[in-house]
Amino acid sequence: MGQKTYDLIIVGGGPAGMTAGIYAARHKIKTLLITKNFGGQMARKAVNIENWPGVQEISGLDLIQKFLSHLKKQEVEILEDSISKAKKTGKLFSVLTGKRKNLGALAVLVASGADPRPLEVPGEKKFIGKGVAYCTACEAPLFQGKIVAVIGGGNAGFEAALSLSQHAKKVYLLEAGAKIQANEANIQKVAQTNKVEVIASAVLKKIQGQNFVQSIVYQDKSKKLQTLEVEGVFVEIGSIPATGFVKGLVDFNERDEIIVSPKTNMTRTSGLFAAGDVTDVKHKQIVIAAGEGAKAALSVYDYLQKL
Amino acid sequence: MGQKTYDLIIVGGGPAGMTAGIYAARHKIKTLLITKNFGGQMARKAVNIENWPGVQEISGLDLIQKFLSHLKKQEVEILEDSISKAKKTGKLFSVLTGKRKNLGALAVLVASGADPRPLEVPGEKKFIGKGVAYCTACEAPLFQGKIVAVIGGGNAGFEAALSLSQHAKKVYLLEAGAKIQANEANIQKVAQTNKVEVIASAVLKKIQGQNFVQSIVYQDKSKKLQTLEVEGVFVEIGSIPATGFVKGLVDFNERDEIIVSPKTNMTRTSGLFAAGDVTDVKHKQIVIAAGEGAKAALSVYDYLQKL
Repeated sequence: MGQKTYDLIIVGGGPAGMTAGIYAARHKIKTLLITKNFGGQMARKAVNIENWPGVQEISGLDLIQKFLSHLKKQEVEILEDSISKAKKTGKLFSVLTGKRKNLGALAVLVASGADPRPLEVPGEKKFIGKGVAYCTACEAPLFQGKIVAVIGGGNAGFEAALSLSQHAKKVYLLEAGAKIQANEANIQKVAQTNKVEVIASAVLKKIQGQNFVQSIVYQDKSKKLQTLEVEGVFVEIGSIPATGFVKGLVDFNERDEIIVSPKTNMTRTSGLFAAGDVTDVKHKQIVIAAGEGAKAALSVYDYLQKL
Repeated sequence: MGQKTYDLIIVGGGPAGMTAGIYAARHKIKTLLITKNFGGQMARKAVNIENWPGVQEISGLDLIQKFLSHLKKQEVEILEDSISKAKKTGKLFSVLTGKRKNLGALAVLVASGADPRPLEVPGEKKFIGKGVAYCTACEAPLFQGKIVAVIGGGNAGFEAALSLSQHAKKVYLLEAGAKIQANEANIQKVAQTNKVEVIASAVLKKIQGQNFVQSIVYQDKSKKLQTLEVEGVFVEIGSIPATGFVKGLVDFNERDEIIVSPKTNMTRTSGLFAAGDVTDVKHKQIVIAAGEGAKAALSVYDYLQKL
C-alpha cells in the first residue's frame, strides 16, 4: 500500500504549530498537523494570560479555542496522534506515528514544544493522577479545601501557588535552592493570599501514600528530613523539549533544544524545520512562538518552491 | 534644564513597537513610546487581515484598536512625535525629537517600520493628497464612481485594486515588469471583479493634472507612450525602512534594513535594539513583528539588569 504523502507535516498543536498551520494553508501547502492535544504552553498556564497582544486578559483555554477555530477554518488536515520516528530518504521524509501510521512529506516542521520536567523521586510515577500533577490549570479545582505542595520556586511555581490558593486550604511552595527565582510581582501576589508558605532550600526526597498522595518528605537546609502532610503535589520545575523522534537529524544545544537557523527556522537537515519552545529561541512566550511558527511556515513555502 | 531620562525609549507604534511596550511595562521598565501614529503596516492594509492568529477576519483599524487599548492599560508613557536624531554618549542615549524635545534613555528600541516607496516621477509630489495616495485603506472610499490606477503588480497592488474595485468605476493596475508578482489567489480575486485591467510591462513616466490628478502617462512594452485618464493614483511599489535617525549607530543590509542579532534583536551598538519591518527579519508579517517586539523587550530587560 502506498504511503500517504503531504507537502508538509507539522508536529505539535501549540501556538507555533497552529500559527504555522494557518500560514501554510493560506499558502496552499498541502498540510497535515499531528498532535495529541492543542494549546502547548497555553494549556498549562496556571493564571490568565495578559501578554497576548490585543487581549488584556484571557484564560489559556479560551485563547486556545480562538487559535483552534481559526486553524479549523483552513484547509489543514488534523491527526490526533504522536510521532515515534522521523527519517529522511532522498528528498522525502517518512514519519511513523504512535498509532503506527506511516506518512510521507516533503517538509517537516517540529513544533512539539516541551513536556514538564519530572521530579525523579520515589513515589512520583506511582501517584501520577492520584495527587501528583503537572498541569495546575487543569487540576487545581480538584483540590478544593485540601492541603497541597508546589515544587519549584520560579515564576511558574508561584503562579501555580497563586492559582491553587483559590481552591486549597493551604499551599506549601518548596524551592530546592536558597534563593527564590520568581519575580517581585509574583512574590508579592503570593504573600497577599496568606495561604502560601514558601520554604527555600527544601530538596524533595519522596512522595508517600496508600492509593493517593498523603505526604511528602524533604531535606531542609540543615540536612534534616521533614515530612509535610499534603494531598496534592504540583510539579513546576521547568520543561524538557519534546524531540525524541528527530534525534540524528538535528543538533541540540546544552538545554536539549533544537538548534535552528534563526532567519529561516531550518535545522541542519534540509527540509526539516522547527519553531517555538522546542527550539533554541531565547524567550519562551506565546507571541514569540506564534511569530516563529509563521516564519517557519513561510520558510517551508520558500523551500517547497525551490524543490 | 536636566534631560528627562527613561530606561527605554521605543520608536514606533506598529505591531512590534506596541507589543514591546506591553512587554516592557509588564517587566517594570520605565518606558516612553514615541510615534506619530499607530498601527504601522496594519494601518495600510487594503483588505481585511485574516492571518492574525485567533482572529479569522478583522480590519486593520480594528486590530490596531485592540493593540492600542491593551498598550494604554500599561504604564507606558506615549509621546506623539517623531525622532530626528539618536546618539550615544557613555552608557546613555540622547534622542532629539521632531518637535525638538531632548530625551535620555539607557536603551533604545527602533520599531519605526517602513514608509511607502515613492514613484519618483514628475507630478507625484505635486499631487500628494490631490489624487496621489499611498494608503489604499485610508483613501479608497474617496474615489467612489471614479477611474483610478494602482502602480505595482505585487500582492499589495492586487489587494489595493481589489479594495478599490468596491468603490471605483474602473481600476487600471500597472506593473513595470513583464511578469505579475502577486499570488494566484489574489490574481483570481481581482479577475472576478470585472473592473480591473491589468497592464504588464507598463513603466509610469508622469502624473498630470490641474489642481487634481487628471491622467498618467506610461511607456508600454513596445516603448510607446500611452495616456490613461484617471483621477487617482495608488502607489504600491514596496517600502523603505524608516531609519534615518540611527545612521552611524547601526549596520544596514542591501535593502537598507537594520541588521540585528537574531537571538537578541540588538544592533551593533550596545543598548540599541530593533524589531519588526525596520530590521532584516526575512518575512514582514504582523505576528512576526509582534513576536520580534516581545523578544526585543525581553532582551532590553536582560540588558538593563546587567548595566
